[in-house]
Order: sequence, then C-alpha cells, then structure tokens
Amino acid sequence: MSGNTFGTIFQVTTFGESHGIALGAVVQGIPAGSVIDEKFIQAELDRRRPGSGIPGATPRREADKVKILSGVFGGVATGTPIALLIENTDQHSSDYDELAECFRPGHADCTYFKKYGVRDWRGGGRASGRETAARVAAGALAKLVLREYRIDVAAGVEALGGVKCAKIDFAAPQGNELNALDPEAVPAMRAAISAAAAAKDSLGGVIRCRATGVPAGLGEPVFDKLDAAVAHAVMSIGAVKGIEFGAGFGAAELRGSENNDPITPDGFASNRSGGVLGGISNGDALEFRAAVKPTPSIGIPQRTVDTGNAPREIAIGGRHDVCIAPRVVPVVEAMTAIVLADMLLLQRTRRL
Amino acid sequence: MSGNTFGTIFQVTTFGESHGIALGAVVQGIPAGSVIDEKFIQAELDRRRPGSGIPGATPRREADKVKILSGVFGGVATGTPIALLIENTDQHSSDYDELAECFRPGHADCTYFKKYGVRDWRGGGRASGRETAARVAAGALAKLVLREYRIDVAAGVEALGGVKCAKIDFAAPQGNELNALDPEAVPAMRAAISAAAAAKDSLGGVIRCRATGVPAGLGEPVFDKLDAAVAHAVMSIGAVKGIEFGAGFGAAELRGSENNDPITPDGFASNRSGGVLGGISNGDALEFRAAVKPTPSIGIPQRTVDTGNAPREIAIGGRHDVCIAPRVVPVVEAMTAIVLADMLLLQRTRRL
Amino acid sequence: MSGNTFGTIFQVTTFGESHGIALGAVVQGIPAGSVIDEKFIQAELDRRRPGSGIPGATPRREADKVKILSGVFGGVATGTPIALLIENTDQHSSDYDELAECFRPGHADCTYFKKYGVRDWRGGGRASGRETAARVAAGALAKLVLREYRIDVAAGVEALGGVKCAKIDFAAPQGNELNALDPEAVPAMRAAISAAAAAKDSLGGVIRCRATGVPAGLGEPVFDKLDAAVAHAVMSIGAVKGIEFGAGFGAAELRGSENNDPITPDGFASNRSGGVLGGISNGDALEFRAAVKPTPSIGIPQRTVDTGNAPREIAIGGRHDVCIAPRVVPVVEAMTAIVLADMLLLQRTRRL
Amino acid sequence: MSGNTFGTIFQVTTFGESHGIALGAVVQGIPAGSVIDEKFIQAELDRRRPGSGIPGATPRREADKVKILSGVFGGVATGTPIALLIENTDQHSSDYDELAECFRPGHADCTYFKKYGVRDWRGGGRASGRETAARVAAGALAKLVLREYRIDVAAGVEALGGVKCAKIDFAAPQGNELNALDPEAVPAMRAAISAAAAAKDSLGGVIRCRATGVPAGLGEPVFDKLDAAVAHAVMSIGAVKGIEFGAGFGAAELRGSENNDPITPDGFASNRSGGVLGGISNGDALEFRAAVKPTPSIGIPQRTVDTGNAPREIAIGGRHDVCIAPRVVPVVEAMTAIVLADMLLLQRTRRL
Repeated sequence: MSGNTFGTIFQVTTFGESHGIALGAVVQGIPAGSVIDEKFIQAELDRRRPGSGIPGATPRREADKVKILSGVFGGVATGTPIALLIENTDQHSSDYDELAECFRPGHADCTYFKKYGVRDWRGGGRASGRETAARVAAGALAKLVLREYRIDVAAGVEALGGVKCAKIDFAAPQGNELNALDPEAVPAMRAAISAAAAAKDSLGGVIRCRATGVPAGLGEPVFDKLDAAVAHAVMSIGAVKGIEFGAGFGAAELRGSENNDPITPDGFASNRSGGVLGGISNGDALEFRAAVKPTPSIGIPQRTVDTGNAPREIAIGGRHDVCIAPRVVPVVEAMTAIVLADMLLLQRTRRL
Repeated sequence: MSGNTFGTIFQVTTFGESHGIALGAVVQGIPAGSVIDEKFIQAELDRRRPGSGIPGATPRREADKVKILSGVFGGVATGTPIALLIENTDQHSSDYDELAECFRPGHADCTYFKKYGVRDWRGGGRASGRETAARVAAGALAKLVLREYRIDVAAGVEALGGVKCAKIDFAAPQGNELNALDPEAVPAMRAAISAAAAAKDSLGGVIRCRATGVPAGLGEPVFDKLDAAVAHAVMSIGAVKGIEFGAGFGAAELRGSENNDPITPDGFASNRSGGVLGGISNGDALEFRAAVKPTPSIGIPQRTVDTGNAPREIAIGGRHDVCIAPRVVPVVEAMTAIVLADMLLLQRTRRL
Repeated sequence: MSGNTFGTIFQVTTFGESHGIALGAVVQGIPAGSVIDEKFIQAELDRRRPGSGIPGATPRREADKVKILSGVFGGVATGTPIALLIENTDQHSSDYDELAECFRPGHADCTYFKKYGVRDWRGGGRASGRETAARVAAGALAKLVLREYRIDVAAGVEALGGVKCAKIDFAAPQGNELNALDPEAVPAMRAAISAAAAAKDSLGGVIRCRATGVPAGLGEPVFDKLDAAVAHAVMSIGAVKGIEFGAGFGAAELRGSENNDPITPDGFASNRSGGVLGGISNGDALEFRAAVKPTPSIGIPQRTVDTGNAPREIAIGGRHDVCIAPRVVPVVEAMTAIVLADMLLLQRTRRL
Repeated sequence: MSGNTFGTIFQVTTFGESHGIALGAVVQGIPAGSVIDEKFIQAELDRRRPGSGIPGATPRREADKVKILSGVFGGVATGTPIALLIENTDQHSSDYDELAECFRPGHADCTYFKKYGVRDWRGGGRASGRETAARVAAGALAKLVLREYRIDVAAGVEALGGVKCAKIDFAAPQGNELNALDPEAVPAMRAAISAAAAAKDSLGGVIRCRATGVPAGLGEPVFDKLDAAVAHAVMSIGAVKGIEFGAGFGAAELRGSENNDPITPDGFASNRSGGVLGGISNGDALEFRAAVKPTPSIGIPQRTVDTGNAPREIAIGGRHDVCIAPRVVPVVEAMTAIVLADMLLLQRTRRL
C-alpha cells in the first residue's frame, strides 16, 4: 500500500501532478468484454472541467482530453489494464513562484514538505485538485461496469456558502452550472459566490450522493463494510472533511423506534440507514452527504511561515475557484462508482 | 481483500461470532522488541465490557479474558504474528430463537442473509457488537506501538440522547461510567437513558476522539490519506453512521478566511483542519467526531418480515444496551490507534 | 503485507510457534454455503503428523487436533472467517537450551536474529516445520472449495536421498508411509534413510505435484500468473529450494519444436508446459516438481558461531526427521490448493 | 489483486500491449529524495532491446525511449508515483493477421481466449515479451534504490541451446551480445543459434542471477519469504519455467552435512543456501538460476486449432528471436531488484 492504488478487483492506480507532463490512471479488473464507451469517459471529464459560466471560477482552461493507451480492442475491454492519459497543457507555473518558499494556509504545502522532505510546489503538485481528473476518468470506467447492472450514481450540491436546497432532485444538477440539486437555489448560490469573490474570500458546500439500483449484499464485513469503503473513497478527495450516511449525525439524536427503518414485504418503509445495514447494502438506495471545505486559496492576506519557519504574510493569486463544491460533484460520483464496481465484483465470489 | 483484515504493515485480522466458541485477532507488524504489556491489553478490554453501573446496560457478563497464543517471548514481540484469543462464555442463544426466521429492523440480519444465503442468527453472529472485543484487543497492541512514539489516543461521549457536553475534557471519560467528556452532563444522560429504557426504546450519541503527539507527515496520499483511513476504520464500527474531522460539516458554512488555520512559527493558530492537511498529519492534534445510531434492538413492537418475506411484528427481548455510545468509545480509540500505528510504520519507508 | 497472510479472495492468515501455546489459521473467502467437513480437515492434518512407521522420524508426538472457532454454522461456511486452532502439547523445550545462544547451520536461527533482533529459539520458533500444520488445515478448506469444482490436487515423493521413482502414480502415496509415487522405490528409500540415520546425517528429496480438473483460464497476468503464484506458495515452504513446471529446467535444452505442446481438437497432444501457458491454466493438468533440501538438523558436529559471533561446534540432538520430504507432501498440496481456490474465485470476476 | 501490480511498498503497476499505443509503468514507494538518473533508466531499457549483433534476433526495431510523466522534480523523487511511458512505434500488425483465428502452440493465445473470451491477438497482446519493457523501466528505479544501499544485481546467460558456460563471471555479460557469463562460450552459443535458425526452430537457456551487498534480514516469513517473493517475481516472466536457489534441485541429492553452509566468525564458509535461510537473507549473496523455454514461435509447421476448434497447421512468420534468454537477462535483474527494494523498505518497519 503506497497510497495511489484503490480497490481490490476493480483497482485504480493514479499518477500525476498539477504542473507535470500528464495525469493518468491505470484501471484493472474491468470485466473482459465490457463495452468501452470513449465518448462517455470524455463526457465525464468534461463535467469536472472548470466551469465557464460560474462566477469566481478558475480561468485555467485545460482541454482534459483523455487518451486510452491499452486494454481495449475492438471497442471492448480485453481484461488487461486500461491506461488513461490526460496531458497537462495550460500551466502557469510562474504564478506559483512565491510558493516555492512559503506554505499556503489550509493547503498541503507544509505537510508534503514534512512528509517527504521535498515537494513539487508548482500548483500544489499532486495535492492539487487537478489530481481528481484521473479519478473521474477511472470512475467513468466504473460507471460502465455499473451500467451493466443498471446501477446509477448521481450527486449534486445540496448547500453552498450556507445556501441550502429546499428540494432534492438528482436530475437537477445536469441542468445548472453549479450542479445544484435544486435549480431554484442557484441564484442565491451565485450571489453568495459573487459576494465571496468580491471579498477575495471563498466558500464551502455540501454534496449529496445517491446510488440507485444497488442490489442487496454488497460490502465486506467487518472492516470493508460498504459505508466504510465509500467513506474511505470520498474522504480521500482533497477538500472533503466529513461524511454521513442516511440520517447520519441526525441519527445520534433519534430514538431507535424513530431511526429503524421498518421492513415490509415491499421493502423498507423508510431509508434512514442510507441503504446500508451492518455494512452491507440492503437493496434500498445508497445515500450519503459529504462536507466540502471552502477553497483554502484566498486573496485575503493570511499569516504563514516560509520553509525556514520565518513568519510571512501571503495573499494568494493564481487561478482558483471560489467554491469547488460544484466541481467535486463528479469526483464524488466517480469514487462512489469505483467502490460499487469493486464490491459488485467481489460479491461474485462470496457464495457457492 | 476479504473484509476481515485491516492495515498494511500493522495489520489486524479478526474472527469470531457473538455466540461461537471464541473471538480473536491476529496482529502482524508490531516491531520486534516492543514490550507487550498483557495487563494493559486486558485493561483495554475491560473498558469495553458491559457497564455495571449504567442504567439500561445489557446484563450479559462476559469475562473477556484475553490469552496471547503466539508472537511474544520473554515479554517482547518477536516480530511474528501475535494471536489474541477471547473465549465466549455467557451465551444465551435461546434468547434469539425467534431470530432464526425473522429479520430485526435496523440490524444486519436481512443483509447477511442476502449476501451469504446463510447466516448465524445467534445473537447477531458476526454482526454483533461483540465482534469489537477483538478490535479492542488488537488496538491495545497498536497503543503499545504509539506509546513508544509518545502518541496518545483518547475518546469520549460528547452527546448522548440529545444531551450535549458543555465542556470537552479528554481526561473525564475515565472517571465516569458513561465515558462522557463532561462529568456534569452525566446526570442528564443517565436520566435520558432511564427514560428510554422505561419506554423500551433506545438512544444514540456522538463520540469525539483526539490523538495528541502525532508527528507531521503521516498519511499516504492520494487514496490512503490519514483522514480517509481513519474514516474507513471508524465507519467500519457497526453503529457509526458519520464522521467529520475538525470543523467538519461546519466548515461547509465557513469562508476560507474563517476556516484556514493560520500558520505561525510556533505552529498552527487554530485547529479547524482536525490535524490533517492534504491527507497528511500536520503536527497538530488529530481530532474527529463520530455519530453513533441508537441501538436497533428495542422492546417496542416493530414491523418486519420473516425469511419467507411474510409480514411479522417483532418486539425484541434479549440483553441489549439502551445506548452503546459509551461502549463504542474504546472501539473508536482502538481503530484510530490501529491506523496511526500503521501510518507511523509506513512513514519509515517514505524518505531516503 | 506483513508476511503471514496469503491470497486475495481465498485468504489465509497463520500464526504460531513450535513451542508456543497454539498454532492456527484464519481463513477468509470460503464461499458461503460450502459444506465444512471437519473430519476431512483432521484427516489432512493427520497426513502431516510425524510418521510412526518411518525410520529416522522424529519421535515428537503431537495430537494435532484441530478446533473450528468460528465461521461455520449448521455444518456450512457462513462467509465469515473460519478460525482453526491447533494446540501444542508435546513440547520439550529443554532439548533446545543450547540453541538460545547458538545458531544451527542451515537453519533460520541466525537470520531471524538479524532480522528481528530477538527470537523465540525454542524448537525453531516460527521457522519450525511445525508452522506448516496451520497451512495444511487451511489447505484442507481450500480442497473443500476445489471439491465443488471437481479439482483434485495430489502430490508424492519422486526422489529421496538420490533414490528415484521409476513410475509416477499419484494414487500410490496414500499407500506407503513415505508418500512415494512408486511403491517399488520404497525399500531403497527406507534403506537410504536408515543409512543416513546411522551416520547421524540427513537426506533431501523431490516432490511432484499434479492438479487435475483445473479449468482453463486460471491465473492473473502479468504478475500473478498461475505458475508464479504457485511458485510463491510452494517456495514459501521452509525446506523447498527450487520449483519447475512441466519440462522445467529440461525445457532449456529442448528446441521449440520439441517443447511446444501441439494443440488438437481433443486438447493438447502433450503436457510439457505443465498446464500453464502465459501464466494461465490451459485445461490440462497443472504439474510441477519441488526440491526439498536435507534436514539441516544433524547429529554430526558442525562449525557455527554463538550470538556473540564466537566460533562453536554444534552436534544437534532434539527430535528431527532424517528426511522431511514425505511430510512436506501434504504441505505442497495444501499450498497448491490455496492458490487454485483463490484463482478460481478471482476468475469469477474477470468476464462480463 | 488484479495481476498487474507487484510489491507492497515499492510497488509497480504496468500496462500495455505489444501493438497498442504505449507500454508503461507506475512506480510507487521510491523514497522521496532519491536521485532519479534518467540516463540509467534508458540504458537499462537499451539492454533489453532486440540485439543487433545476434544471429536469429527479431528485426523489430523499437526506439524504446522512456518518458517520465510524474513524480520527479528537480531531479529527485518527490514521493509521488513515477509514471514511465514507452511508446510503441514499429508495429507490423499485419504480420499477425492469421493469428486472429488461430492459436499458436506454446503461446498464451488459447489461454487468454479462454480466460477473457476476447483477446488482442496483435503480436501476442499483453502476453508478448514486449510487456517486459515496462518491467525493466520499473526495475531501473528499483536499482536506483538499491544503489543507495550498495546492493548490486547482476545476471547472465549460463546455458543456451545446451551450450554451458564453463566459468561464471558476472562482469562478462556486459561484454558480449549474448549476455553470456563466460565469453568463451559465445562462439558455440552463436553456432547453436545459427543452426536452430536455419532449421526454423528455436532454443532455450538458463539464466543465473546474483545480488551482492544484500544485508541480512530481508524477507517476510512465513509466506513472503525472500526466495518465495523472488520466485514469484521471476516466474512471472513469460518464458521462465523453473527457478532454484543455491544448490537448488541438487540439494535434494545432498546430505545435510554436505548441504549446510558452516558458519564462521567471518561469515558462511559456503553458499549452498543461495543466501537465504528460513526465507530471510543471511548476508551472503542471493543467488539463483532460472530456466527459459525455447521461443514458441517457430517456422516449422505445427499442429493447432482455430478459434472454432477445427484443426489447423501453422508455420509462424513474424519477427521473433531464436532464443530470448539473452534478452530475459535484464528482465530477471529488474524483477529481482524490485523485490529487493520492496523488502529493504519493509525491513525498515520490523524493529522497534
């Protein structure tokens, strides 16, 4: 375990830095014979790209064209690893010259330095959100596996900068540039972003994700429970600081009689469990929420230190999103899909 | 990956059912030469045992005596696996006869059945909270590793049945039978438990955990970030439904200027990150909160189905805690310690 | 990876030292619903016990009674880990007192000491052949999986102390106490053992193993090829110093036209490949040979050093087999069965 | 485990087919700060390229230029994964048209088809020896790790087509195009190759490998013994059919008094163990031999079947080496280096 490989059967290995030559993923374990829909992979990547209609969005413009290097022949997976390559094209490393000597608050600059003793400071190196492009590409392959099982994973922004969606509609995010679950919340969210941008500040948000069509029986007790594996996957996304399934933290304040989902011959009468009991999917929708912290890169001057531990003040320029929650949406979907694809394949081995 | 092994270098494999012959853990990767303090392992297990002074606590009385079968010679770890055995003694399987044919709401009865096609229904089988005894025993070994690094992991109950601690004192839980972080909250928590017990109902709670002395540099980006690994570990505990680090879900409502922890020559000026940046420990305390759902076993009649999917009503007898949050406290510590021990050893390999 | 866990889906973790309290194995991944035939497990263990009719066999008499601690209910596997325990009963640690300070040539005494800095010197500790009892118990479970697929794994002694079998009959080993593949070779083998015993010396041997009924398609290119995984498994048995598949080293001296197995509509016209092409089973029998070195513990005085690196002469007493090849036979079968069970289950995930 | 990732800390993932766009490797776990000598990586790859001076060598001419995509900054490893890319340039897929419908004897054509149901038949797809280019590139990084520890891995051809080296000199292979361990054997080896080429046939060989400077203590008992891990690594190379350490199969015919290496204050008096005792390096040189089968692609007509199982005769054209043993030499070194680098890093975690 060296940190860049995830999964057991459906197994993803990623590489690449923000300002290196390329990012990529090597994906193992896609069942041979699966149709590989290249356009779908590209479309997923396109969903993650910087939003052009969003106020306060980074002006960085990466083409993010994905290239399949191996593992596909005649349009189907051959069972050998599928390598996906995304070249970096629009790098402004000079934007980051100051960062060679100085740690940005809220960023991984200082921790990478302390862990490794060296660091690629250009654009955050591997700690950049750009790393997630490889996850989305790999997640697209996972979604192709899920498609065979008629499982759908959808996510959206439930709250942004304190503005909450009044309704939850998982079809909505495709229709608005903030990936909001309630289109009526978009104007207020945009206003919040504009205000924060004007203040050279940033905002956080909450993402809700739901997977439908998940059969009962997925998840590997006791340590690799479905919710534990999804938590691992989603918490490994840079900006995510918390996750809760079903009633989540709210369950802590309920009584058992309120929180238990009654079982009926037609299924569960409610879904406060988030679709998981004892770490195994129960046949209901898998549902969870994830907290995204505000972008740490802000223009407001902040206290920090340099690599020699001398105090410094830093006002961060460069190209950053005021709120990255909308762009984290496809990443959350990708990581969830990767876990589900792996668990589906593992489950094939569990019974006689 | 078959679900019962956790960790890479410090690696724990557990086994055992609630009403089987024994539970146990095989622990690999404890550095050879580590002093193995048997009394400490037993003391940790004793913290997890059913509480005698708690209203509504299960009357099940397991001795939970741990026996070391291998890997220790002359009082120190030899580098070979340490097997820990805990025999089951106080089983009342007949309490559970009804469960052979019927799924308890909020339990893993139905999901184990759907996953495996068969199940050991006695006392919940492997999905029983009793399984966590093996985790605590293994976690005690992890704590012995952390002791060498002067790292301390402490947890406590922050909220129970809606009663919240006004103060957070990590020394407090050792002094009260509810493991509450604020002793002054104990009377109200006890009252809540008594009321729920009288109503044949159950309660949930929130656990807060803090690890101090954690050096900067632990965690393996990008997938095995420290917080992702801790989330995996803690979410794999049966009753846990959510986890958040530092400001957590609250961070989603802060601005970057409010959420970033300023860096000073003397360290971070605040700890809203929970001690993790970019998935790597930053030298500050690792801190998180976990939501524990109310015990699903309640005496109030509930709707369910039997194994033939016919509707049934069930009122659960047997021996159950009204609120298990106090007993989950040492389990949360154990899982956190296991992750930290593993990450500490992994970090030894990361630099030239 | 900490050395005591093997396999991905069918996953075995073992523990225990020669003179500790117990040995054991935790076996994960047996498909739920598999019938667990306890008598078969015990019978396999009995095959590994010291032979009573063999000249020069160790007089150590272990009952080697296996106890199932978990994972079985109503006679079938439940999908949770099956823990197997074998208690040590007949230990004469005092036989080994000299070894506390002195390294036996050809043994792991010195390397464990250098690796770990401490060692359990009683009877070789974990490096003792006794460790393989846990492998055989786990292997018996693997054989139960293979039984469902009508795969049979059989091994026998092909050569011992220079005496070679003229015929190869995989039914023969069950009928003679040396597990020889040709019963007519037994008298000469016994004579060789007696002569070596009289000289206070020891002998090596060659084991041949064949698995029939193996379907085409097992093995995970490129690194976990079937033959690579079997080589790993079999080479991990203490005394094994070499392995070759099919024509093996002999293939190095053949021409392609001699070595290639012609393919016909009825299958391969020969099996010089040993049943593996490109690391994947080809439908023919999997067949390999393994070299077993002579028992390093001999009564003849040998040069060695003590733990302070001072020269010493050592004549090893204690209870040792003159040739362990016959007892390694069930261990080779066990490790082969473990790999095949794992590969069978993995293959379930490889196609759409 | 999906077959294309090897190692625990120093961890290699490869991808790519013979006639795809590119081959590559993602290498994790190189200690941060390690100097990455690009020229050395290229030089290692150049050693594996088709030999221009060898009779009967494939005329395929790949530039095999390696490109580093990530993980290196300022000339040193940053601790993030190093992705290595090798583009395919000289493909003659049309040479292989017949193979779309027909299985070559001795090749993986039929087994890939049976495993996956589909296959990339162009040039053998992933089963092509070309896959090993990625191993050599990754192995070069492993050698850079070993360089820091002053460990050297060297291999050479000990026998080819029945011609055996009379002397073993590990400096010799660099000086002759057959990588022979004895330059005086080269003329006879060349003659054997010419004769086989004239007969449209092929030859096998034996490779000997030695690693010097290996400290005592490497290897992870009981399953991941050093020799077991090396056997796994080397047997995973396509054409290798057997491996033996030290005296190997010869040890089976020795007595204990002949096979044990006496221990003296100055080290072992002999090295029949091949540098491994109980699966742990003993401080002496690690030494083993590997058998390479004759190239299965030959011009002599052979019996086979097509994908519909109808009988066919096939005479293989295309571009193939008469004997690939010389080109396997750097691959054996690479795989050995990968294991040693991993074991070195793992050993850092084993003691207090």
